[in-house]
Amino acid sequence: MPSERPSPVVDTSASPHARLRPIDLRTVEVTDAFWRPRLRRNREVTLPAQYEQCETTGALRNFERAADLDDGPFNGRYYSDSDVYKWIEAASWTLAGGDSPELVARLDSVIKRVAAAQSGDGYLNTYFSVDRAGERWTDLVVRHEMYCVGHLVQAAVAHHRTTGGRELLDVALRACAHIFERFTPDRVPGTCGHPCLEMALVELYRATGERRWLTLATWQLDSRGRGVLDGSEYLVDHAPVRRQTEVTGHAVRALYLYAAVADVVLETGDEDLRRTVDALWHDLSRHKTSVTGGVGARWDGESFGDAYELPDRAYNETCAAIAHILLAWRLLLLTGAGEYRDAIETALHNGVLCGLSLDGTEFFYQNPLADAGRHRRQEWFSCACCPPNIARLLASLPGYLYTASDEGLWIQLYIGNRADLRLADGTAVRLELATDLPWEGAVSVTVTPEQPAEFTLFLPVPAWAEERPVIRIGGEIVEADHRDGYLAVRRTWAPGDTVELTLATPVRPLVTHPRAAQTHHRVAVTRGPIVYCLEQVDHPDTPVADIRLTGAEDWRPARRTDLLGDVTTLTTSARVLSEPDGPEGAGPPHRRWSGAATATTDVTVTAVPYFAWANREPGPMRVFLPLN
Amino acid sequence: MPSERPSPVVDTSASPHARLRPIDLRTVEVTDAFWRPRLRRNREVTLPAQYEQCETTGALRNFERAADLDDGPFNGRYYSDSDVYKWIEAASWTLAGGDSPELVARLDSVIKRVAAAQSGDGYLNTYFSVDRAGERWTDLVVRHEMYCVGHLVQAAVAHHRTTGGRELLDVALRACAHIFERFTPDRVPGTCGHPCLEMALVELYRATGERRWLTLATWQLDSRGRGVLDGSEYLVDHAPVRRQTEVTGHAVRALYLYAAVADVVLETGDEDLRRTVDALWHDLSRHKTSVTGGVGARWDGESFGDAYELPDRAYNETCAAIAHILLAWRLLLLTGAGEYRDAIETALHNGVLCGLSLDGTEFFYQNPLADAGRHRRQEWFSCACCPPNIARLLASLPGYLYTASDEGLWIQLYIGNRADLRLADGTAVRLELATDLPWEGAVSVTVTPEQPAEFTLFLPVPAWAEERPVIRIGGEIVEADHRDGYLAVRRTWAPGDTVELTLATPVRPLVTHPRAAQTHHRVAVTRGPIVYCLEQVDHPDTPVADIRLTGAEDWRPARRTDLLGDVTTLTTSARVLSEPDGPEGAGPPHRRWSGAATATTDVTVTAVPYFAWANREPGPMRVFLPLN
Repeated sequence: MPSERPSPVVDTSASPHARLRPIDLRTVEVTDAFWRPRLRRNREVTLPAQYEQCETTGALRNFERAADLDDGPFNGRYYSDSDVYKWIEAASWTLAGGDSPELVARLDSVIKRVAAAQSGDGYLNTYFSVDRAGERWTDLVVRHEMYCVGHLVQAAVAHHRTTGGRELLDVALRACAHIFERFTPDRVPGTCGHPCLEMALVELYRATGERRWLTLATWQLDSRGRGVLDGSEYLVDHAPVRRQTEVTGHAVRALYLYAAVADVVLETGDEDLRRTVDALWHDLSRHKTSVTGGVGARWDGESFGDAYELPDRAYNETCAAIAHILLAWRLLLLTGAGEYRDAIETALHNGVLCGLSLDGTEFFYQNPLADAGRHRRQEWFSCACCPPNIARLLASLPGYLYTASDEGLWIQLYIGNRADLRLADGTAVRLELATDLPWEGAVSVTVTPEQPAEFTLFLPVPAWAEERPVIRIGGEIVEADHRDGYLAVRRTWAPGDTVELTLATPVRPLVTHPRAAQTHHRVAVTRGPIVYCLEQVDHPDTPVADIRLTGAEDWRPARRTDLLGDVTTLTTSARVLSEPDGPEGAGPPHRRWSGAATATTDVTVTAVPYFAWANREPGPMRVFLPLN
Repeated sequence: MPSERPSPVVDTSASPHARLRPIDLRTVEVTDAFWRPRLRRNREVTLPAQYEQCETTGALRNFERAADLDDGPFNGRYYSDSDVYKWIEAASWTLAGGDSPELVARLDSVIKRVAAAQSGDGYLNTYFSVDRAGERWTDLVVRHEMYCVGHLVQAAVAHHRTTGGRELLDVALRACAHIFERFTPDRVPGTCGHPCLEMALVELYRATGERRWLTLATWQLDSRGRGVLDGSEYLVDHAPVRRQTEVTGHAVRALYLYAAVADVVLETGDEDLRRTVDALWHDLSRHKTSVTGGVGARWDGESFGDAYELPDRAYNETCAAIAHILLAWRLLLLTGAGEYRDAIETALHNGVLCGLSLDGTEFFYQNPLADAGRHRRQEWFSCACCPPNIARLLASLPGYLYTASDEGLWIQLYIGNRADLRLADGTAVRLELATDLPWEGAVSVTVTPEQPAEFTLFLPVPAWAEERPVIRIGGEIVEADHRDGYLAVRRTWAPGDTVELTLATPVRPLVTHPRAAQTHHRVAVTRGPIVYCLEQVDHPDTPVADIRLTGAEDWRPARRTDLLGDVTTLTTSARVLSEPDGPEGAGPPHRRWSGAATATTDVTVTAVPYFAWANREPGPMRVFLPLN
């Protein structure tokens, strides 16, 4: 029985400081050629496969063990519960897309196992449930107990919103009540080595209206950097959150934490936290974001590097790109500024999507921008955070397509869909968005209010489109304000009004900031929201490392429905070094400079979308290409 | 009482397959302005400070605990014994430079403590001696038991060679006999997660003539990659050593292992191992060596990267640069080829020396080629491998200045010194080498045989000198064969003959191989054996990241006796970006490319030796500088 309440992903519908409100993701049906098959694959392939992983790794059996239904050993790591919770969350958002009695039954069965594992006092973490009960809460630095409850809460809220069911929500509430008693605001400082619970608690507040969860979230934020943990940058515990000004430490930890800061600002308007999150976003977005939207440059500590440390072999954990979206989405809800939308679009199409094989069964944990050919996706990981994180993001994607505000409706992602939305006054409006993006820029939006209604339709102008598109309605050119990344079209909309626009999709070679030494004199080729790369498999006769661009390449897009599940490739004429080792053969790695080694031999090169690399035979890959 | 036998560092004097023989490091006195103060500081500052560290960290107390003289807990890590052994080795080589009753007494006291800690069955590792005796040899993958014995053997051999004392040698022999019994060749496979014992065993064979140590070393080499360990690349256990063709895995482990392969080849001429080590050296020297001689690009696993993965933020562990020298020295002894000598010279002056502060008290573990200003040397590390490794290398440095062969004497490092050497027939020859290198290329060598004698004096022509220098003896130009990196001057030498030559020291901007994407269109400035860098402290008005070279800079060397303990700086006129963030201020990290962002403002820049960076106020540092 679906809930009668709206089912948003992040529910700012009553948040006093939110500029934007979410829409009900149950009312959005993705229809386009790019995303529709991906969401179907997420539902039909990835979700069942991940359920199997939760079975075979023993992550599910851990709950039976905690409920005294299994007497085997604990399986996996002390945060294995979170794999199951992320699966529940992904499955729950998936249910929003349509009935599936089989999935409902499986979800109910899993939730029953989770509920049975909860201790009488509300505590829930299967690692500590049986033989390690005495170790509960003895190691906040390492053990992820609150982190797991965070994913439990997110799963419970998703399940409640999409099904109306309360069983898991009640489990989550009891678990949070236990934590509230143990680490009571203003009395006992408490926070977790791995943030997650903070943003979950704000969402729990939104779902239940119980303000103590917001209080607890704020308390946990403010317990950080104050001696509860180890004071390390790795845990983002090096300073009180309100005094942090640079994005540093473990990337996923940092961005989960800052997403919660944004959540608290949405609810409380706390000016201090607002300045904090603005400064941190500035550092992240100006200095520490890869061209793919991937973040967290360093392999050591899965962490952020220094400003402009954006190397080829970036770590760029898939979870960090997802965390980047979670943070940007909250800041978008707060401000309605297109910069955050652009960041989401880039991270989604490149930094996140790269984490998933085209067939939906294998995953990248790290997403470097160049590789020699050994980095390959895997079915699962002993630290399995990324795969179900992708699944839950994709399952909830319909919730990111629109927002609403008092002024009207906002398109946030140009993904083909049919949606039944509501204006602030309750008027129903059907939107049908048709597009062949990310490949071609034509977009049409048919607007069908239940009766003629005046409101503003906000249409994003992505940074990649470079220029403001012409808007036509019924064939007539319409003037529209350009505000902070959006064209605002205000009018009285009549049923069937169709907005048409064509976003320019020029090939855009991007350079990194001149202080980013590693990519000096190299470009990353992009078109629309898509970042491209060269793969060796497309260049059987030319080592990709020897390819040089001459500068003003005329890249020719070509739609290749037969390739990599239907992509647009980019082809150009470039140059190749004829004797990369010099006339003397394989020499030392360093030689005296004597003018630039200019490549002179012509070669045709074909770039493919970065998200699709490593789906064919292994070989070198490069995003940043040297200029000759 | 010094031993009457020669005291070489690596004793190939009886190795059937060695082209070169070592000299007795007790007969070499370093006299120049660059190295003499450094060796004095090693003796007077670093060694006492490291002894104190062994005391305060409890590494020394662990031996008393193992001898039942202390009932405290074990201190440090399971390989802490090796800190003490490396200190003994460093102190022993230091004694070769002259009497020091105080140091002798301290050494004797430490050795007594080590000896007292040995179990009756010969086993020696203080981590396992008391409460963990049952865990001996249960974890060859992780626990470093053989590794520690390796350092014990190296210390014992050094102590025996420089003092004639046998106490520590007997301890080492008993420890090795225990291992021989436990992991007997042809019966029980055995090898250590961290190589070290292998090359030590070959040296023990050389010191004692007992062939079973060579047999055991070979057995340990051949036990690798065969199921004894975990099969990982990290442990260099991914394949049998004889089938390894690429340098991969943990850099120090790999190069300690391959140094032992070279040692076995020196003794046995094993053709299979020779091909192996040649192929591995090729991969190392052509694809995986930083411009500083640092090796091991990756922070994850302290490991080698792919071919041409030579990033700014290289890991380049100090111990790996030392291991690079240990391997190259053995290959030099095997072949007499100047390529290995060049590698040693580069690694010594840059990759290793950078690991030590100018005052001799602080150390780098990692040696990246660029930094934002936070990477600083430390007094010690919880994993303290690097500091005493530097100390033992510097203490043994006199042993690397010369080699001998049937043809004559070989200068290997142009370091000012006075040495009393012997020809193959026993004739004594005093050599006095005077030079102001690494700053100026003039070298004079006064040759004083006890009586006129015909032999060849080999004088290296370093790669950085670019051209063959003119050789004068008594003012007369002398013809000399140029063979494999050396000028071979054969004549009947009379007492007082003085060879004079001037090596060219042009400023050499080096570029990396064109397949090394990270340093594309950037140069590293070098002069003589020294690699330079820019430090922010020398450019108060110009962010070093904004500096661009225009190409054919005219770098002006200037000797600055007042700076960084007396160095030659390089100054030039370059350009600086006037608006690195563009006219719009701090923008996103990636922008559309529209032709190269050319720096137009003139600026004077001053480069300092890389080894001396981070000895003044913290700030950004760069080795590779972008071309405009």
